[in-house]
Amino acid sequence: MTSPVGLHRVLAPAGVLPQAAQRLDVRPEVGADEVRIAVERLNLDAASFRQLWEKHGGDGAAVRAEVLEIVARRGKMHNPVTGSGGMLIGTVDEVGPESPLGLKPGDRVATLVSLTLTPLHISQTSWDGRGEQVPCVGHAILFARSVAAVLPDDLDPRLALAVLDVCGAPALTARVVRAGAAVAVLGAAGKSGSLSLAAARAAGAARTTGVVRDEAEAALLRGAGLADRVVVADARDPVAVAAAVGEPVDVTVVCVDVPGCEHGAILATAAGGTVVFFSMATSFAAAALGAEGLAADVTMLVGNGYVPGHAGYALDLVREVPGVRRLFAGRLGT
Amino acid sequence: MTSPVGLHRVLAPAGVLPQAAQRLDVRPEVGADEVRIAVERLNLDAASFRQLWEKHGGDGAAVRAEVLEIVARRGKMHNPVTGSGGMLIGTVDEVGPESPLGLKPGDRVATLVSLTLTPLHISQTSWDGRGEQVPCVGHAILFARSVAAVLPDDLDPRLALAVLDVCGAPALTARVVRAGAAVAVLGAAGKSGSLSLAAARAAGAARTTGVVRDEAEAALLRGAGLADRVVVADARDPVAVAAAVGEPVDVTVVCVDVPGCEHGAILATAAGGTVVFFSMATSFAAAALGAEGLAADVTMLVGNGYVPGHAGYALDLVREVPGVRRLFAGRLGT
Repeated sequence: MTSPVGLHRVLAPAGVLPQAAQRLDVRPEVGADEVRIAVERLNLDAASFRQLWEKHGGDGAAVRAEVLEIVARRGKMHNPVTGSGGMLIGTVDEVGPESPLGLKPGDRVATLVSLTLTPLHISQTSWDGRGEQVPCVGHAILFARSVAAVLPDDLDPRLALAVLDVCGAPALTARVVRAGAAVAVLGAAGKSGSLSLAAARAAGAARTTGVVRDEAEAALLRGAGLADRVVVADARDPVAVAAAVGEPVDVTVVCVDVPGCEHGAILATAAGGTVVFFSMATSFAAAALGAEGLAADVTMLVGNGYVPGHAGYALDLVREVPGVRRLFAGRLGT
Repeated sequence: MTSPVGLHRVLAPAGVLPQAAQRLDVRPEVGADEVRIAVERLNLDAASFRQLWEKHGGDGAAVRAEVLEIVARRGKMHNPVTGSGGMLIGTVDEVGPESPLGLKPGDRVATLVSLTLTPLHISQTSWDGRGEQVPCVGHAILFARSVAAVLPDDLDPRLALAVLDVCGAPALTARVVRAGAAVAVLGAAGKSGSLSLAAARAAGAARTTGVVRDEAEAALLRGAGLADRVVVADARDPVAVAAAVGEPVDVTVVCVDVPGCEHGAILATAAGGTVVFFSMATSFAAAALGAEGLAADVTMLVGNGYVPGHAGYALDLVREVPGVRRLFAGRLGT
């Protein structure tokens, strides 16, 4: 019997959910409520790719070898250091008779649940290890309680994949931002950052500040017209972030995929405000103890990647906000 | 010139806040807005003590040696593995002329900012390394933006210290719980757990469930009368937690100081509900990816140890709810 959350695919240790598992069962036969995807491409989580890239000093072959080793050993792409994965794109190959996901064979889909809990087998790849997108051949399994989005016809699949990978961020930002709020986004020229800025404005933010790491990013973001103000600061330097943001804001959104950004976000946020952490490099203890140590009365949210309607919301932002689309296109080289 | 958040006490690395520092300056001379405390006792964070205890296989002398080594090397009690510290009790020794904390020499106080950012020097201790409370002689420094509570006359200082150590939990629980809500607390017979249960009921929760790890804890909690229902489950086993809680609740409060409790809390919480993580053993990535992987539309809060009025609120709960006081007294052996 299969479990809607995939317990039957956990090989070790016994009784944990697939995300917590050391190893998953990648057998291609689908259970009654499962779906098998013929994989085309992985999109590695930015924090995960950065960690691997830095560990191997920019040696693409070594990055590639480690990713393939992880997938072969664990039956999923789950970076043991960052704890993060990414997502994938592919074509529906077989649908169990009781799957509730509404997919049919031939649908081109992106999975919106993390690779850290998705059974995955890679049989071959032409990837050079030098970027987050991993073209490959293989298969993956979806459970009854997985989430997948059929790729839209009107957007380049690489663009759609990059947007869907971070689609929880704009949806949650839109939920948190009240009309008239002042909002700061750290890492504002990146994928989740630019979408979050657009979402904040769509939700009625009165004042948006984009914080970026250097002048090149600042020029990109100014060109996109997504923020009322663009400032440069190292997000790991709390004093610099607070000075750059100026008057503390109601909502701070953290989209910088490097460790050590918790304190700057807290210092930049007004008493009674909210910090939303989307970076997988966030340290729970640094956030909790940082706010306490600064006597900062701020609400801190763990950025949940699932918000109902998140995929459609993010794709609509890309369709309707030219600045977001330009930033994504620039990053993807499309 | 001194900084209200203590930047002037950071020795390495340069430019970070005291909590992120490797090493703090413990010189006893106070700056214009600083306060020096003559230390009597530390209360180590539960996750930190547990990690040290398990690492050294219950060898108190080794635990003691490592704590003293950390404090001597870092100028603060900051466990490098758990990232957590604890708090301390002492008597105000000297107050800089510009300190805004309202303290005066001779006040008996507890610090409500973490030991991970408090300059601390220990000159001697009679501690045997076998419990979280560390009697010692030494000094500590408070900054302008620190928080300290004068100890109440009507409560045993050990009881007050234990309550103040976790006083953020009941205050934040009271803020999150709406009248009529169903609330589950994981680790409900512990210090922050029992206070959170009492806070949930005081905030108008219609149904409270206490989840504990074994029958002994269950008997304790039933005797205290703090929960409408007491159930036994291993908080690290998501399936067991969800089964024990039954119908998903509006608010789940996590007070279990062991890793791996994120998924059970998420599974136990209804769509649209809230999970509050108070345990320093919480993994940010496990929470974020767990909710996403379970397609769980839940709001997840990082338990901020600072909420205005938290100390008075928690002490009042202990005064007014006999069950809470009995549980604390039992744990402290008073």
